[in-house]
Amino acid sequence: MTKHTYSPFDTELDDLQRRLLMLGEVVCQQVERAMDALATNDMELVEEVLRTEKAINREEVAIDDTSTQMIVRHAPAAVDLRLLLSVRQIVSDLERVGDEAKKIAKAARPIIESESKFVPKVELHHVCAKAVSMLRAALDAFVRRDPSASTTIMRQDKEVDAIFKGIVRQLATYMMEDPRLITRSLDVLFIAKSIERVGDHAANVAEQVVYLVKGRNVRHESIEEIEQQIAAKR
Amino acid sequence: MTKHTYSPFDTELDDLQRRLLMLGEVVCQQVERAMDALATNDMELVEEVLRTEKAINREEVAIDDTSTQMIVRHAPAAVDLRLLLSVRQIVSDLERVGDEAKKIAKAARPIIESESKFVPKVELHHVCAKAVSMLRAALDAFVRRDPSASTTIMRQDKEVDAIFKGIVRQLATYMMEDPRLITRSLDVLFIAKSIERVGDHAANVAEQVVYLVKGRNVRHESIEEIEQQIAAKR
Repeated sequence: MTKHTYSPFDTELDDLQRRLLMLGEVVCQQVERAMDALATNDMELVEEVLRTEKAINREEVAIDDTSTQMIVRHAPAAVDLRLLLSVRQIVSDLERVGDEAKKIAKAARPIIESESKFVPKVELHHVCAKAVSMLRAALDAFVRRDPSASTTIMRQDKEVDAIFKGIVRQLATYMMEDPRLITRSLDVLFIAKSIERVGDHAANVAEQVVYLVKGRNVRHESIEEIEQQIAAKR
Repeated sequence: MTKHTYSPFDTELDDLQRRLLMLGEVVCQQVERAMDALATNDMELVEEVLRTEKAINREEVAIDDTSTQMIVRHAPAAVDLRLLLSVRQIVSDLERVGDEAKKIAKAARPIIESESKFVPKVELHHVCAKAVSMLRAALDAFVRRDPSASTTIMRQDKEVDAIFKGIVRQLATYMMEDPRLITRSLDVLFIAKSIERVGDHAANVAEQVVYLVKGRNVRHESIEEIEQQIAAKR
């Protein structure tokens, strides 16, 4: 972000990115808090997560509107426009992560209320920590303008997808062994699905870093193709 | 889209919208074909849906890139910029609908292979037709610049969500009655989830119509608030 002369537009760009990163940290914490609420049967924390979601939505709209105004007012050149368009994409992914945290919190409610009766024991903590750390790594790659971190995150996303499929199989087995577990297993399934989606959003942010730095939309390319793009000179 | 003088930029804008609508029709048909494949046990149609998905992805990237170039080259004024930003949002939703069609087709495979053994009988046709017709209506509202259709679509999205919840309950009951249905019930559950997501994307497109015409981001507002926005003079 260092430039020779620092214009008011640069200051605005810096502010916008700072707000984006702040929002990113908030949504990461939302996912963590929703999972904590589930782990510790903390219904108060569930409600707190749901309340915070509204603030996230407002900040998403505010960042989006600011980016639009900046495009209108400054008619930025290709590289700055790319940054503004990336911010718009990333903020939309972050808000969706906030949505997934909300879904986790809502699905946690009946599980907490059931007081551990007929709740399948499934390890979700590890995969959730992985998905959240991917999102933090993607935002960090965005700050550092480092597309080389992106393909690592995309690979991790595939791992998260595989873990999710394993969880679905595990839940199916539990349900077959004891049909009384079925109702709460479906709640757990939706929580696992939300975690898997957090991984998808992290991968989307990682794609935006490639777009920002290399000027190329790599959304549907293979990881190998993307690595070639990154290795190629700008 | 009628203006007094018709510039090359206007022609480009028209082309872009035409391509967007074409893509919209293709993704609607993808969802319908994936569900047809499931209904008629047509594995060949499953593969056809998966093949078409790649073309959709390419067209998404092309429309996205074209819109970026148009912003760079023309530095459009507020109203045209809003149109270009709307196109970007809508094309992203359409591609995601294409993704859901792919997921439906993939989840249909094991169901088709099981030759109706231990497959729960759940009515998905009606809710799918509803979600797809919502998406067509949203695209039609976009063409007509008619935000008043948007809130109808948003209400229908809530109906689709409620139908999805009913399907989950129904599947839970089936699984409890006959645990041999569990594995295929989870496949059906994911198909129902994809249909529910198509409804979400239709509602997103409907929001973009309000943004385009009224200049206001209504993503997180209530339907009543949005109706007031639409009723207010421009």
